[in-house]
Amino acid sequence: MRAIQITEFGGPEVLTVTELPDPAAGPGHLLIDVSRAGVNYADTHQAEDSYVSASTLPMVPGGEVVGTTTGGRRVVALVGTGGYAEKAVASEALAWDVPDAVDDVTALGMIVQGASAWLLLRRSVHLEPGESVVVHAAAGGVGSLAVQLAKARGAGRIIATASSANKRDLALDLGADVAVDANEPDLTAALIEANGGRRVDTVLEMTGGTVTDQSLRALAPFGRLAFYGMASRTEPSPVRPATLMAHSTTIAGMWLAHVFRLPGDVMRTALDDLFGLAVAGRLRVVAGGEYGLSEARRAHEDLRARRTTGKLVLDPSR
Amino acid sequence: MRAIQITEFGGPEVLTVTELPDPAAGPGHLLIDVSRAGVNYADTHQAEDSYVSASTLPMVPGGEVVGTTTGGRRVVALVGTGGYAEKAVASEALAWDVPDAVDDVTALGMIVQGASAWLLLRRSVHLEPGESVVVHAAAGGVGSLAVQLAKARGAGRIIATASSANKRDLALDLGADVAVDANEPDLTAALIEANGGRRVDTVLEMTGGTVTDQSLRALAPFGRLAFYGMASRTEPSPVRPATLMAHSTTIAGMWLAHVFRLPGDVMRTALDDLFGLAVAGRLRVVAGGEYGLSEARRAHEDLRARRTTGKLVLDPSR
Repeated sequence: MRAIQITEFGGPEVLTVTELPDPAAGPGHLLIDVSRAGVNYADTHQAEDSYVSASTLPMVPGGEVVGTTTGGRRVVALVGTGGYAEKAVASEALAWDVPDAVDDVTALGMIVQGASAWLLLRRSVHLEPGESVVVHAAAGGVGSLAVQLAKARGAGRIIATASSANKRDLALDLGADVAVDANEPDLTAALIEANGGRRVDTVLEMTGGTVTDQSLRALAPFGRLAFYGMASRTEPSPVRPATLMAHSTTIAGMWLAHVFRLPGDVMRTALDDLFGLAVAGRLRVVAGGEYGLSEARRAHEDLRARRTTGKLVLDPSR
Repeated sequence: MRAIQITEFGGPEVLTVTELPDPAAGPGHLLIDVSRAGVNYADTHQAEDSYVSASTLPMVPGGEVVGTTTGGRRVVALVGTGGYAEKAVASEALAWDVPDAVDDVTALGMIVQGASAWLLLRRSVHLEPGESVVVHAAAGGVGSLAVQLAKARGAGRIIATASSANKRDLALDLGADVAVDANEPDLTAALIEANGGRRVDTVLEMTGGTVTDQSLRALAPFGRLAFYGMASRTEPSPVRPATLMAHSTTIAGMWLAHVFRLPGDVMRTALDDLFGLAVAGRLRVVAGGEYGLSEARRAHEDLRARRTTGKLVLDPSR
């Protein structure tokens, strides 16, 4: 089969197409004929070995695929590595059936970004109908889905933040009621103003640093902030529990990997909900571009240069 | 009317019975013929002027009463001050009707302690049926009700902590599955062991210091700790949001006063639920003793010496 195989760590230039033997699926695993593979920022870390978990060589990068099993099931799956290839192997526990009406890009957009947005709203901040929600990085993978999910859930007011006018327009197009420049010097005041002068009920935050600090200060009593990333690579200020009590504030950390340690199949529940909304036309994945397998290098170059918006996928057939 | 009036700040000795004119209820207020007044630790701070909000003299202490309005309604009310008297005035917004089947002590136990326990479980940690919950200070006013509410909600395992064997026996009697000594040097390990070797889903914490720190470390992924008091007067360690993310941990501060800033009448919803459970025999307020108005000094002495367990009330008729 054709695959991208890395034999030395590095930048996009190490992504070259190779012919490899087909992988074999052991017990409890599925062999998947890959229709499309997702391209994520984490893959660029895998390739240069700067990810949370260490990579080993040689390696086929790529953590998520959609395709057809040897048994004929159409599934989307988390594979860890091995996604940038014509065939991939997934654990049965990490592969979920996809309805026919859901296209490949949508399926790939739901498995990490969609599930994250769903968990943040349902399990981290418990958004109730009528409540306000601030979605930071609202044009991003998780943010763009969170805006739409909050809308579907009946949020009272959706306040998007993004760093460029184009991204703010996208957030408004997806259903945000108002869009705020993420670089506002007094972000606390800007968020409260965007909420009609009232403090906000919930915040989804993945930036870190002063954005977290200032967002916490914009919360209403019994307000909740979910913290699920630190894109600025700057830590927020530490939080004093006594201060949280004085304002009845909740801060909820969230890392998607933990969903698999919850009892019950929460991912299946989330994906059922997400796919249902997608089929009903109430939730769409912003497509960011499709590349052939031989264009993987260019996909990573575009991603690292932040030239893209939306979900990037690879087509292993070309 | 007979009342306790303080003319100088101080300890229990300043609580003396006086004859005062009946108070008058202005617009939007109710005049209540007090059947019983609640005695709370906060009242001792009022009397010595060491409370969060400053007191002014002369003052009738006491923040909660149950009784009958001039219109014939039986209500429980939050009055701020003025409770230790035969008659008290309450804002209509802070008085709630009490079903006949609910006795005075139970009504007084629900308005602050019961409502706090209810909000902690529903709004702070969102306890789901089957989940484990640690209730610190489980023999205390909030804790004793939280144990029973968690049981009524279908908690999977209720782990109580208390500092004495008698208090731990009370917690077990109220429905806790296991009781842990709050002074265990390795509280993290003790809580996990008490949960059958598994990390815990939720914690209700009002102690502060290392109890908070060690409880946070006992949480399972997607675990939630509610922080609603600092009885040890020692702050917990500040919390890094990045650490919360790495473990998918939530910490939720809660101060009951904020419930009145929530939309909708959340107190009414809470009290309906609490009174309903009390009438059904599924929730009981632990009675801590009844004192005559002229025994107010002894009530404060007993409370400050921590000789009491359960709800203390004053009978203004004697």
